[in-house]
Amino acid sequence: MPAKRVPDIVVARLPLYLRALSAMQHSGKEFTSSQEMAQWLGISSAQIRKDLSHFGEFGKQGTGYSITGLQQKLRQILNLEREWPIIIIGAGNIGSAIANYPGFAHRGFRVCAVFDNDPRKIGSHIGRYEVYDVRELPTFVRRHGIQLAMIAVPAESAQEVADLAIAAGIKAILNYAPINLSVPDHIRVENIDPVLHLQHMTYYLA
Amino acid sequence: MPAKRVPDIVVARLPLYLRALSAMQHSGKEFTSSQEMAQWLGISSAQIRKDLSHFGEFGKQGTGYSITGLQQKLRQILNLEREWPIIIIGAGNIGSAIANYPGFAHRGFRVCAVFDNDPRKIGSHIGRYEVYDVRELPTFVRRHGIQLAMIAVPAESAQEVADLAIAAGIKAILNYAPINLSVPDHIRVENIDPVLHLQHMTYYLA
Repeated sequence: MPAKRVPDIVVARLPLYLRALSAMQHSGKEFTSSQEMAQWLGISSAQIRKDLSHFGEFGKQGTGYSITGLQQKLRQILNLEREWPIIIIGAGNIGSAIANYPGFAHRGFRVCAVFDNDPRKIGSHIGRYEVYDVRELPTFVRRHGIQLAMIAVPAESAQEVADLAIAAGIKAILNYAPINLSVPDHIRVENIDPVLHLQHMTYYLA
Repeated sequence: MPAKRVPDIVVARLPLYLRALSAMQHSGKEFTSSQEMAQWLGISSAQIRKDLSHFGEFGKQGTGYSITGLQQKLRQILNLEREWPIIIIGAGNIGSAIANYPGFAHRGFRVCAVFDNDPRKIGSHIGRYEVYDVRELPTFVRRHGIQLAMIAVPAESAQEVADLAIAAGIKAILNYAPINLSVPDHIRVENIDPVLHLQHMTYYLA
Protein backbone atom coordinates (compact mmCIF):
# COMPACT_ATOMS: atom_id res chain seq x y z
CA MET A 1 0.00 0.00 0.00
CA PRO A 2 1.52 3.32 -1.09
CA ALA A 3 -0.28 5.26 1.68
CA LYS A 4 2.96 6.41 3.34
CA ARG A 5 3.83 8.43 0.25
CA VAL A 6 0.60 10.40 0.13
CA PRO A 7 1.23 14.16 0.53
CA ASP A 8 0.09 15.45 3.89
CA ILE A 9 -2.10 18.07 2.23
CA VAL A 10 -4.08 15.25 0.60
CA VAL A 11 -4.43 13.44 3.93
CA ALA A 12 -5.70 16.69 5.46
CA ARG A 13 -8.59 16.79 2.97
CA LEU A 14 -9.81 13.23 3.61
CA PRO A 15 -11.63 14.17 6.86
CA LEU A 16 -13.46 16.90 4.92
CA TYR A 17 -14.61 14.31 2.39
CA LEU A 18 -15.72 12.04 5.19
CA ARG A 19 -17.70 14.86 6.83
CA ALA A 20 -19.41 15.75 3.55
CA LEU A 21 -20.32 12.10 2.93
CA SER A 22 -21.87 11.81 6.40
CA ALA A 23 -23.97 14.91 5.74
CA MET A 24 -25.08 13.45 2.40
CA GLN A 25 -25.97 10.18 4.07
CA HIS A 26 -28.03 12.00 6.69
CA SER A 27 -29.91 13.74 3.91
CA GLY A 28 -30.91 10.28 2.60
CA LYS A 29 -28.57 9.91 -0.39
CA GLU A 30 -26.93 6.60 -1.38
CA PHE A 31 -24.61 7.64 -4.21
CA THR A 32 -22.60 10.73 -5.04
CA SER A 33 -20.10 11.92 -7.62
CA SER A 34 -16.88 13.91 -7.46
CA GLN A 35 -18.84 16.76 -9.09
CA GLU A 36 -21.43 16.76 -6.33
CA MET A 37 -18.76 16.53 -3.61
CA ALA A 38 -16.93 19.37 -5.33
CA GLN A 39 -19.98 21.58 -5.20
CA TRP A 40 -20.58 20.65 -1.58
CA LEU A 41 -17.02 21.37 -0.51
CA GLY A 42 -15.82 24.13 -2.80
CA ILE A 43 -12.92 21.94 -3.98
CA SER A 44 -12.56 21.03 -7.68
CA SER A 45 -13.85 17.62 -8.75
CA ALA A 46 -10.49 16.90 -10.42
CA GLN A 47 -8.77 17.50 -7.07
CA ILE A 48 -11.14 15.15 -5.29
CA ARG A 49 -10.65 12.39 -7.87
CA LYS A 50 -6.87 12.86 -7.74
CA ASP A 51 -6.83 12.77 -3.92
CA LEU A 52 -8.88 9.58 -3.79
CA SER A 53 -6.84 7.92 -6.56
CA HIS A 54 -3.89 7.74 -4.14
CA PHE A 55 -5.79 5.03 -2.33
CA GLY A 56 -7.18 2.96 -5.18
CA GLU A 57 -10.29 2.89 -7.35
CA PHE A 58 -13.57 3.80 -5.67
CA GLY A 59 -16.09 5.21 -8.11
CA LYS A 60 -18.00 3.27 -10.74
CA GLN A 61 -18.62 4.61 -14.24
CA GLY A 62 -22.22 5.78 -14.31
CA THR A 63 -23.25 5.30 -10.69
CA GLY A 64 -20.44 7.28 -9.02
CA TYR A 65 -19.41 6.62 -5.44
CA SER A 66 -21.40 4.55 -2.96
CA ILE A 67 -21.62 6.91 0.01
CA THR A 68 -21.44 4.12 2.59
CA GLY A 69 -18.64 2.40 0.72
CA LEU A 70 -16.50 5.51 0.41
CA GLN A 71 -17.10 6.44 4.05
CA GLN A 72 -15.98 2.97 5.10
CA LYS A 73 -12.87 3.20 2.97
CA LEU A 74 -11.97 6.66 4.30
CA ARG A 75 -12.48 5.52 7.89
CA GLN A 76 -10.16 2.62 7.22
CA ILE A 77 -7.50 4.89 5.66
CA LEU A 78 -7.71 7.35 8.56
CA ASN A 79 -7.58 4.59 11.20
CA LEU A 80 -11.08 5.39 12.40
CA GLU A 81 -12.38 1.85 12.57
CA ARG A 82 -11.51 1.96 16.25
CA GLU A 83 -12.50 4.58 18.81
CA TRP A 84 -9.63 6.78 20.02
CA PRO A 85 -9.53 7.85 23.66
CA ILE A 86 -8.38 11.47 24.15
CA ILE A 87 -7.44 13.50 27.17
CA ILE A 88 -8.01 17.22 27.59
CA ILE A 89 -5.42 19.25 29.47
CA GLY A 90 -6.86 22.50 30.82
CA ALA A 91 -10.28 22.87 32.48
CA GLY A 92 -10.86 26.54 31.64
CA ASN A 93 -13.45 27.93 29.23
CA ILE A 94 -12.05 26.25 26.15
CA GLY A 95 -11.25 22.93 27.85
CA SER A 96 -14.78 22.82 29.27
CA ALA A 97 -16.36 23.62 25.91
CA ILE A 98 -14.37 20.83 24.24
CA ALA A 99 -15.17 18.35 27.02
CA ASN A 100 -18.88 18.98 26.48
CA TYR A 101 -18.68 19.00 22.69
CA PRO A 102 -21.10 16.35 21.40
CA GLY A 103 -19.37 15.96 18.02
CA PHE A 104 -16.59 13.53 18.96
CA ALA A 105 -18.45 10.33 19.70
CA HIS A 106 -19.76 9.45 16.26
CA ARG A 107 -16.58 10.45 14.51
CA GLY A 108 -14.04 8.19 16.16
CA PHE A 109 -13.12 9.85 19.44
CA ARG A 110 -13.99 9.65 23.11
CA VAL A 111 -12.86 12.15 25.71
CA CYS A 112 -11.79 10.06 28.68
CA ALA A 113 -10.31 12.55 31.15
CA VAL A 114 -9.74 16.24 31.85
CA PHE A 115 -6.67 17.49 33.74
CA ASP A 116 -5.77 20.81 35.35
CA ASN A 117 -3.22 22.12 37.86
CA ASP A 118 -5.58 24.53 39.65
CA PRO A 119 -6.51 23.18 43.13
CA ARG A 120 -9.89 24.96 42.82
CA LYS A 121 -10.70 22.99 39.68
CA ILE A 122 -9.25 19.59 40.62
CA GLY A 123 -12.05 17.36 41.87
CA SER A 124 -14.79 19.55 40.35
CA HIS A 125 -16.91 18.32 37.44
CA ILE A 126 -17.16 19.45 33.83
CA GLY A 127 -20.24 17.79 32.43
CA ARG A 128 -19.66 14.15 33.25
CA TYR A 129 -15.92 14.45 33.79
CA GLU A 130 -14.17 14.89 37.09
CA VAL A 131 -11.16 17.16 36.72
CA TYR A 132 -7.97 15.31 37.67
CA ASP A 133 -4.71 16.71 38.96
CA VAL A 134 -2.28 17.10 36.06
CA ARG A 135 0.30 15.27 38.20
CA GLU A 136 -1.79 12.13 37.65
CA LEU A 137 -1.53 12.54 33.89
CA PRO A 138 1.60 10.42 33.23
CA THR A 139 0.22 7.40 35.10
CA PHE A 140 -3.20 7.77 33.44
CA VAL A 141 -1.76 8.05 29.93
CA ARG A 142 0.52 5.04 30.42
CA ARG A 143 -2.12 2.88 32.04
CA HIS A 144 -4.69 3.49 29.31
CA GLY A 145 -2.25 3.66 26.39
CA ILE A 146 -3.53 7.05 25.30
CA GLN A 147 -1.93 8.65 22.25
CA LEU A 148 -4.03 11.79 21.71
CA ALA A 149 -4.23 14.95 23.81
CA MET A 150 -5.95 18.30 23.39
CA ILE A 151 -4.11 21.15 25.09
CA ALA A 152 -6.28 24.04 26.27
CA VAL A 153 -4.07 25.82 28.79
CA PRO A 154 -2.75 29.40 28.68
CA ALA A 155 0.06 30.04 26.19
CA GLU A 156 2.69 30.32 28.93
CA SER A 157 2.01 26.80 30.26
CA ALA A 158 1.46 25.00 26.97
CA GLN A 159 5.04 23.92 26.24
CA GLU A 160 5.53 22.51 29.74
CA VAL A 161 2.27 20.58 29.54
CA ALA A 162 3.14 19.29 26.06
CA ASP A 163 6.53 18.05 27.29
CA LEU A 164 4.84 16.23 30.18
CA ALA A 165 2.28 14.62 27.88
CA ILE A 166 4.87 13.53 25.31
CA ALA A 167 7.12 12.04 27.99
CA ALA A 168 4.13 10.00 29.15
CA GLY A 169 3.49 8.59 25.66
CA ILE A 170 1.21 11.06 23.87
CA LYS A 171 1.89 10.92 20.11
CA ALA A 172 -0.44 13.57 18.71
CA ILE A 173 -1.55 16.92 20.11
CA LEU A 174 -4.37 19.23 19.15
CA ASN A 175 -3.13 22.54 20.51
CA TYR A 176 -5.57 25.33 21.39
CA ALA A 177 -2.91 27.51 23.02
CA PRO A 178 -1.83 30.33 20.68
CA ILE A 179 1.84 29.34 20.51
CA ASN A 180 3.99 27.04 18.41
CA LEU A 181 4.94 23.98 20.40
CA SER A 182 8.41 22.51 20.03
CA VAL A 183 8.10 18.75 19.79
CA PRO A 184 10.27 15.84 18.61
CA ASP A 185 9.94 14.86 14.93
CA HIS A 186 7.81 11.79 15.57
CA ILE A 187 5.09 13.79 17.40
CA ARG A 188 2.18 15.26 15.38
CA VAL A 189 0.80 18.65 16.34
CA GLU A 190 -2.19 20.48 14.86
CA ASN A 191 -3.19 23.93 16.02
CA ILE A 192 -6.51 25.64 16.52
CA ASP A 193 -6.22 29.40 16.81
CA PRO A 194 -9.27 31.38 15.72
CA VAL A 195 -7.22 34.54 15.28
CA LEU A 196 -5.12 32.94 12.52
CA HIS A 197 -8.34 32.28 10.59
CA LEU A 198 -9.70 35.77 11.21
CA GLN A 199 -6.44 37.42 10.14
CA HIS A 200 -6.44 35.29 7.00
CA MET A 201 -9.93 36.60 6.13
CA THR A 202 -9.29 40.28 6.87
CA TYR A 203 -6.70 40.21 4.07
CA TYR A 204 -9.66 40.05 1.70
CA LEU A 205 -11.86 42.64 3.46
CA ALA A 206 -11.85 46.31 2.59
CA MET B 1 0.47 46.37 -5.81
CA PRO B 2 0.44 42.72 -6.90
CA ALA B 3 -1.26 41.61 -3.66
CA LYS B 4 -4.44 40.43 -5.37
CA ARG B 5 -2.47 37.72 -7.18
CA VAL B 6 -0.95 36.14 -4.10
CA PRO B 7 -2.01 32.49 -3.72
CA ASP B 8 -4.43 31.99 -0.85
CA ILE B 9 -2.18 29.37 0.71
CA VAL B 10 0.54 32.02 1.05
CA VAL B 11 -1.91 34.48 2.62
CA ALA B 12 -2.91 31.75 5.09
CA ARG B 13 0.69 31.50 6.33
CA LEU B 14 1.15 35.22 7.00
CA PRO B 15 -0.79 35.14 10.31
CA LEU B 16 1.51 32.31 11.44
CA TYR B 17 4.55 34.47 10.68
CA LEU B 18 2.98 37.35 12.56
CA ARG B 19 2.29 35.13 15.58
CA ALA B 20 5.88 33.82 15.61
CA LEU B 21 7.25 37.37 15.37
CA SER B 22 5.13 38.49 18.33
CA ALA B 23 6.44 35.60 20.39
CA MET B 24 10.02 36.49 19.42
CA GLN B 25 9.41 40.10 20.35
CA HIS B 26 8.04 39.06 23.74
CA SER B 27 11.18 37.05 24.33
CA GLY B 28 13.17 40.26 23.85
CA LYS B 29 14.57 39.79 20.33
CA GLU B 30 14.93 42.63 17.81
CA PHE B 31 16.02 40.82 14.66
CA THR B 32 15.37 37.43 13.16
CA SER B 33 16.13 35.48 9.99
CA SER B 34 14.13 33.23 7.70
CA GLN B 35 16.21 30.35 9.15
CA GLU B 36 15.19 31.17 12.70
CA MET B 37 11.54 31.62 11.72
CA ALA B 38 11.74 28.31 9.86
CA GLN B 39 12.97 26.52 12.95
CA TRP B 40 10.29 28.20 15.05
CA LEU B 41 7.47 27.28 12.68
CA GLY B 42 8.50 24.02 11.08
CA ILE B 43 8.25 25.61 7.61
CA SER B 44 11.33 25.74 5.31
CA SER B 45 13.26 29.02 5.22
CA ALA B 46 13.03 29.01 1.40
CA GLN B 47 9.24 28.88 1.70
CA ILE B 48 9.20 31.79 4.13
CA ARG B 49 11.45 33.92 1.90
CA LYS B 50 9.33 33.07 -1.14
CA ASP B 51 6.08 33.88 0.67
CA LEU B 52 7.38 37.25 1.85
CA SER B 53 8.86 38.10 -1.56
CA HIS B 54 5.30 38.40 -2.91
CA PHE B 55 5.03 41.61 -0.94
CA GLY B 56 8.40 43.24 -1.54
CA GLU B 57 11.86 43.25 0.03
CA PHE B 58 12.00 43.06 3.81
CA GLY B 59 15.22 41.51 5.03
CA LYS B 60 18.66 43.13 5.01
CA GLN B 61 21.80 41.24 4.08
CA GLY B 62 23.60 40.47 7.31
CA THR B 63 21.09 41.72 9.88
CA GLY B 64 18.01 39.80 8.67
CA TYR B 65 14.51 41.01 9.44
CA SER B 66 13.65 43.71 11.94
CA ILE B 67 10.98 42.02 14.04
CA THR B 68 9.00 45.21 14.62
CA GLY B 69 9.34 46.21 10.98
CA LEU B 70 8.18 42.88 9.62
CA GLN B 71 5.27 42.74 12.09
CA GLN B 72 4.18 46.20 10.98
CA LYS B 73 4.37 45.22 7.33
CA LEU B 74 2.41 42.00 7.89
CA ARG B 75 -0.27 43.85 9.87
CA GLN B 76 -0.57 46.29 7.00
CA ILE B 77 -0.86 43.50 4.41
CA LEU B 78 -3.50 41.68 6.49
CA ASN B 79 -5.50 44.87 7.12
CA LEU B 80 -4.82 44.69 10.85
CA GLU B 81 -3.91 48.33 11.36
CA ARG B 82 -7.50 48.86 12.43
CA GLU B 83 -9.45 46.89 15.03
CA TRP B 84 -12.20 44.66 13.62
CA PRO B 85 -15.47 44.31 15.53
CA ILE B 86 -16.87 40.76 15.50
CA ILE B 87 -20.15 39.26 16.57
CA ILE B 88 -20.62 35.77 17.98
CA ILE B 89 -23.77 33.86 17.10
CA GLY B 90 -24.53 31.12 19.61
CA ALA B 91 -24.21 31.45 23.38
CA GLY B 92 -23.62 27.78 24.19
CA ASN B 93 -20.38 26.25 25.48
CA ILE B 94 -18.30 27.13 22.46
CA GLY B 95 -19.79 30.61 21.97
CA SER B 96 -19.16 31.38 25.65
CA ALA B 97 -15.59 30.13 25.49
CA ILE B 98 -14.88 32.29 22.44
CA ALA B 99 -16.56 35.34 24.00
CA ASN B 100 -14.26 35.03 27.01
CA TYR B 101 -11.14 34.27 24.97
CA PRO B 102 -8.52 36.88 25.89
CA GLY B 103 -6.49 36.40 22.69
CA PHE B 104 -8.45 38.64 20.32
CA ALA B 105 -7.77 42.13 21.65
CA HIS B 106 -4.07 42.46 20.90
CA ARG B 107 -4.33 40.79 17.54
CA GLY B 108 -6.79 43.04 15.75
CA PHE B 109 -10.24 41.95 16.91
CA ARG B 110 -12.89 42.95 19.41
CA VAL B 111 -15.96 40.89 20.20
CA CYS B 112 -18.80 43.38 20.34
CA ALA B 113 -21.94 41.27 20.77
CA VAL B 114 -23.23 37.73 21.35
CA PHE B 115 -26.56 36.54 19.91
CA ASP B 116 -28.77 33.52 20.57
CA ASN B 117 -32.35 32.44 19.88
CA ASP B 118 -32.93 30.70 23.23
CA PRO B 119 -35.24 32.80 25.45
CA ARG B 120 -33.45 31.39 28.52
CA LYS B 121 -30.15 32.78 27.29
CA ILE B 122 -31.32 36.11 25.87
CA GLY B 123 -30.68 38.85 28.43
CA SER B 124 -28.22 36.71 30.44
CA HIS B 125 -24.53 37.58 30.57
CA ILE B 126 -21.45 35.81 29.26
CA GLY B 127 -18.49 37.51 30.86
CA ARG B 128 -19.09 41.16 30.06
CA TYR B 129 -21.50 40.54 27.19
CA GLU B 130 -25.25 40.57 27.42
CA VAL B 131 -26.75 37.94 25.11
CA TYR B 132 -28.99 39.59 22.51
CA ASP B 133 -31.92 38.09 20.64
CA VAL B 134 -30.76 36.88 17.24
CA ARG B 135 -33.69 38.80 15.72
CA GLU B 136 -31.80 41.97 16.63
CA LEU B 137 -28.78 40.82 14.64
CA PRO B 138 -29.61 42.40 11.26
CA THR B 139 -30.16 45.86 12.74
CA PHE B 140 -27.03 45.57 14.91
CA VAL B 141 -24.81 44.46 12.03
CA ARG B 142 -26.08 47.23 9.74
CA ARG B 143 -25.86 49.95 12.37
CA HIS B 144 -22.27 49.11 13.32
CA GLY B 145 -21.06 48.11 9.85
CA ILE B 146 -19.85 44.73 11.08
CA GLN B 147 -18.25 42.41 8.53
CA LEU B 148 -17.06 39.47 10.66
CA ALA B 149 -19.09 36.82 12.49
CA MET B 150 -18.22 33.67 14.38
CA ILE B 151 -20.93 31.03 14.21
CA ALA B 152 -21.13 28.67 17.19
CA VAL B 153 -24.61 27.18 16.90
CA PRO B 154 -25.59 23.52 16.42
CA ALA B 155 -24.98 22.11 12.93
CA GLU B 156 -28.68 22.07 12.08
CA SER B 157 -29.09 25.83 12.65
CA ALA B 158 -25.80 27.01 11.14
CA GLN B 159 -26.91 27.52 7.54
CA GLU B 160 -29.99 29.53 8.55
CA VAL B 161 -27.93 31.72 10.84
CA ALA B 162 -25.27 32.21 8.15
CA ASP B 163 -27.93 33.28 5.63
CA LEU B 164 -29.32 35.79 8.12
CA ALA B 165 -25.87 37.22 8.86
CA ILE B 166 -24.90 37.48 5.20
CA ALA B 167 -28.18 39.19 4.31
CA ALA B 168 -27.38 41.75 7.02
CA GLY B 169 -23.95 42.52 5.59
CA ILE B 170 -21.52 40.03 7.12
CA LYS B 171 -18.66 39.37 4.68
CA ALA B 172 -16.55 36.76 6.49
CA ILE B 173 -17.55 33.89 8.77
CA LEU B 174 -15.53 31.78 11.14
CA ASN B 175 -17.69 28.68 11.41
CA TYR B 176 -17.47 26.39 14.45
CA ALA B 177 -20.48 24.27 13.41
CA PRO B 178 -19.37 20.96 11.90
CA ILE B 179 -21.00 21.49 8.50
CA ASN B 180 -20.05 23.08 5.20
CA LEU B 181 -21.90 26.35 4.78
CA SER B 182 -23.22 27.33 1.35
CA VAL B 183 -22.44 30.98 0.77
CA PRO B 184 -22.23 33.34 -2.21
CA ASP B 185 -18.84 33.61 -3.93
CA HIS B 186 -17.94 36.96 -2.39
CA ILE B 187 -18.30 35.67 1.20
CA ARG B 188 -15.25 34.19 2.97
CA VAL B 189 -15.73 31.22 5.27
CA GLU B 190 -13.14 29.49 7.44
CA ASN B 191 -13.98 26.45 9.52
CA ILE B 192 -12.89 25.26 12.93
CA ASP B 193 -13.72 21.62 13.56
CA PRO B 194 -11.44 19.81 16.00
CA VAL B 195 -12.47 16.41 14.65
CA LEU B 196 -11.03 17.21 11.21
CA HIS B 197 -7.65 17.82 12.87
CA LEU B 198 -7.87 14.69 15.01
CA GLN B 199 -8.82 12.53 12.02
CA HIS B 200 -5.91 13.99 10.08
CA MET B 201 -3.52 12.93 12.87
CA THR B 202 -4.88 9.42 13.39
CA TYR B 203 -3.83 8.67 9.81
CA TYR B 204 -0.29 8.68 11.14
CA LEU B 205 -0.95 6.75 14.37
CA ALA B 206 -0.63 3.00 14.62
